Amino acid sequence: MADIGTHQAESALAGIVGAGHLLAGDAIGADYAHDEALSSEPVKPAYVARPETAEQVAQLLKTASEHRIPVTARGSGSGMSGAARPRPGGLLISFERMAAILEIDTENHVAVVQPGVTLEDLDGELAKHGLVYPVYPGELSASIGGNVGTNAGGMRAIKYGVTRNHVLGLEAALPTGELIRTGGKFVKASTGYDLTQLIIGSEGTLAVVTEAVLKVQPRMPYQGTVLAPFVDLDEVARAVPKVVGSGIGPLILEYIDGLTMGAITYRAQLQLGIPDEVRETSHAYLVVQLENRNADRLDEDIAEVGELLSGLGAKDVYVLEGSAANKLIDAREKAFWAAKEAGADDIIDTVIPRASLPQFMERVRQIAQENNTFVVGCGHAGDGNVHLAVLQKDNEVRDRVLHGLFEAGISLGGAISGEHGIGRKHTERFLALTDPAKVDLMRRIKTAFDPAGVLNPGVLFD
Amino acid sequence: MADIGTHQAESALAGIVGAGHLLAGDAIGADYAHDEALSSEPVKPAYVARPETAEQVAQLLKTASEHRIPVTARGSGSGMSGAARPRPGGLLISFERMAAILEIDTENHVAVVQPGVTLEDLDGELAKHGLVYPVYPGELSASIGGNVGTNAGGMRAIKYGVTRNHVLGLEAALPTGELIRTGGKFVKASTGYDLTQLIIGSEGTLAVVTEAVLKVQPRMPYQGTVLAPFVDLDEVARAVPKVVGSGIGPLILEYIDGLTMGAITYRAQLQLGIPDEVRETSHAYLVVQLENRNADRLDEDIAEVGELLSGLGAKDVYVLEGSAANKLIDAREKAFWAAKEAGADDIIDTVIPRASLPQFMERVRQIAQENNTFVVGCGHAGDGNVHLAVLQKDNEVRDRVLHGLFEAGISLGGAISGEHGIGRKHTERFLALTDPAKVDLMRRIKTAFDPAGVLNPGVLFD
Repeated sequence: MADIGTHQAESALAGIVGAGHLLAGDAIGADYAHDEALSSEPVKPAYVARPETAEQVAQLLKTASEHRIPVTARGSGSGMSGAARPRPGGLLISFERMAAILEIDTENHVAVVQPGVTLEDLDGELAKHGLVYPVYPGELSASIGGNVGTNAGGMRAIKYGVTRNHVLGLEAALPTGELIRTGGKFVKASTGYDLTQLIIGSEGTLAVVTEAVLKVQPRMPYQGTVLAPFVDLDEVARAVPKVVGSGIGPLILEYIDGLTMGAITYRAQLQLGIPDEVRETSHAYLVVQLENRNADRLDEDIAEVGELLSGLGAKDVYVLEGSAANKLIDAREKAFWAAKEAGADDIIDTVIPRASLPQFMERVRQIAQENNTFVVGCGHAGDGNVHLAVLQKDNEVRDRVLHGLFEAGISLGGAISGEHGIGRKHTERFLALTDPAKVDLMRRIKTAFDPAGVLNPGVLFD
Repeated sequence: MADIGTHQAESALAGIVGAGHLLAGDAIGADYAHDEALSSEPVKPAYVARPETAEQVAQLLKTASEHRIPVTARGSGSGMSGAARPRPGGLLISFERMAAILEIDTENHVAVVQPGVTLEDLDGELAKHGLVYPVYPGELSASIGGNVGTNAGGMRAIKYGVTRNHVLGLEAALPTGELIRTGGKFVKASTGYDLTQLIIGSEGTLAVVTEAVLKVQPRMPYQGTVLAPFVDLDEVARAVPKVVGSGIGPLILEYIDGLTMGAITYRAQLQLGIPDEVRETSHAYLVVQLENRNADRLDEDIAEVGELLSGLGAKDVYVLEGSAANKLIDAREKAFWAAKEAGADDIIDTVIPRASLPQFMERVRQIAQENNTFVVGCGHAGDGNVHLAVLQKDNEVRDRVLHGLFEAGISLGGAISGEHGIGRKHTERFLALTDPAKVDLMRRIKTAFDPAGVLNPGVLFD
């Protein structure tokens, strides 16, 4: 009976996408079995489907609901929390054949894209029109579908916000088999519940996105970067609100601790020309990047930020020229890879009110020490989004450390993840640390979308 | 039995807020019976409760759910679609006693407020700190709670977005009696479903907001305004993407048609110094307001916008000095009152992709002509949000006109309302014109929050 059911399901799925685009068994490549979540075992799904149209996606979901097959959607597989890691026996929907930029609309300033489009491809196309999609999670191979799933953020969130601030509308397939359109080519609506916003960040548990309408902006031609070493993080945290309050509107406002700075500059073979005596007494760095449509205004703003930071205790202020600046930002983006190479067993990205950064880092130090664990990091200082690499091989101890770090963030008014998502990795801790009334409500919302419970089970709920 | 039930309910409600703050019968003033939706009959509720704490609100909802009493939340009653109009036999929760600004946090750049706080009070307090809450729906007596309920927008949405882009977190009472906290003093999170965004714009049908965490910005000291008459709306619509694409970042980008310009300037006794020969041949005006933290940069930008508009067909360009500019913006904000005085029977605010403005207005002209109805308007040209006054006394004809206008907007990829909401006024048309799969999904979401169906019945769903 089970075999017949399985066979029926397989033919139904193959009938939808064509036999050549439904993979099973050994035909499923190793890449489909994981994303970039550390310390997670790869899991091969029963099937990988590569649909070509939204209608096919909707049909896949309907069939999966009928046969109670768990479904996981996958973009580029660059997620950090395991939300794209398939279930054994499940169906993985992969979007390599739905990766077209459908429209760059310069009148309405929107781009309409399929979920498999990468940030890099989109940026290349928009650049030709003098436009930019300003969400910048760092990993340019990431797909828009994945970005929507996790509500990706990145370094430019201080100026431009995150994915949810730039997605104006969606086409999405519901597990019940319907295709719906939400929002549109407009920045505001008050016409029923905002399903666009609800689906963004739901990590593939409510619906599967088949198209996105993205808000795009004029591309600013001039950028400049200031690097300022400080004695410690407290001073960085005190400087941040002053930079924001100045009205200068920084594009990037990052802090990097001394150790991480050493690691990423060494890895990138980057010489920043900071004298030894400054480097040895600087335990925290602030990176401020500005942009402008006018070169003179940029220079004025750079000078103003420099003066401001000097007055706020910076030990020196370095204005980085084009290539050094790009290399530093690039190296910062690759901090994940540096941490991975250094043997990090986990990366987390707790978010807290930014003024609580020193208190949070003090708790981090305590938790690390109590558990004999090495924790090091950098973060989006303007956003209070702290990225920490945790080096601890023992699973039990590491679990205790992560639980402690999340608990510390939440007790300061924060949340478990600023941009990586909960995924399979943190679901258990999310359920343990979240108000049960909210979890119950979310569960009821999940059921409203997905009565059969097939969409990404094990993510957000057990 | 019904009487005993009613009596029990009344004592339970009075027990929660205190007898002095539960009004019934003649003690209920006329103001509680309506909002600013035109052509709507006032409705007196059975009770008005004036809670003082979030816990009281949660208890009121729990009691209402138990006794199946419909509940409507009311801020300042300045809504345009009847979402704050109570139900006969229902409970109106009014927030005059929950109108405190709880915190202006200059480190995290947030304000924490109770729902009854007005935009005017908040602005006055923020100004002292050099900060601004930039959402500007025009009616400054409106409350934050009401703004959250309708996802209020306004003229500055082109630069700053709408309410949902500035609310970082909420405390809200659920109809099941729990108080939950969503989001927080941070701009990004990827930690479960975004309940903040789901509650915003839900018009009091999912939860009742008891506190809001608002993102605030540095207040720009310099503003300047350019007024440009054009031959017709097509030319205005062609100019708008160029202004946006320039990267100048306008604060306001409004179009006003010739008739409305005549009405609002006459009403405000405002002399703009436009020569008769220009006025007589200009059927559409574009208003561009800019802001800057630097007076010289503002002047340069104003000059640049002026040149840009001249090159795009403006018949002239008027740089309005402080008081004339403020008066014009103020007059534009009061266009609703001008329309009301002129005998408008309805005001709608359909949103469309902004490039479709000329096509939409052509359909508006046709529908108006076919139905012998006078339709006149202005709108947020940068957002495609068109405010139209409909003058037609016959209810049946007016219904047909509204249905036609909404249908025209939706067929161009738009939505019924950009910022006024659906309310009681447009629920029937919303249900008729929205994809049934989406309506069903929204209904299931509604039930997930409000199993007893007590929150604002008749709004969004019948």
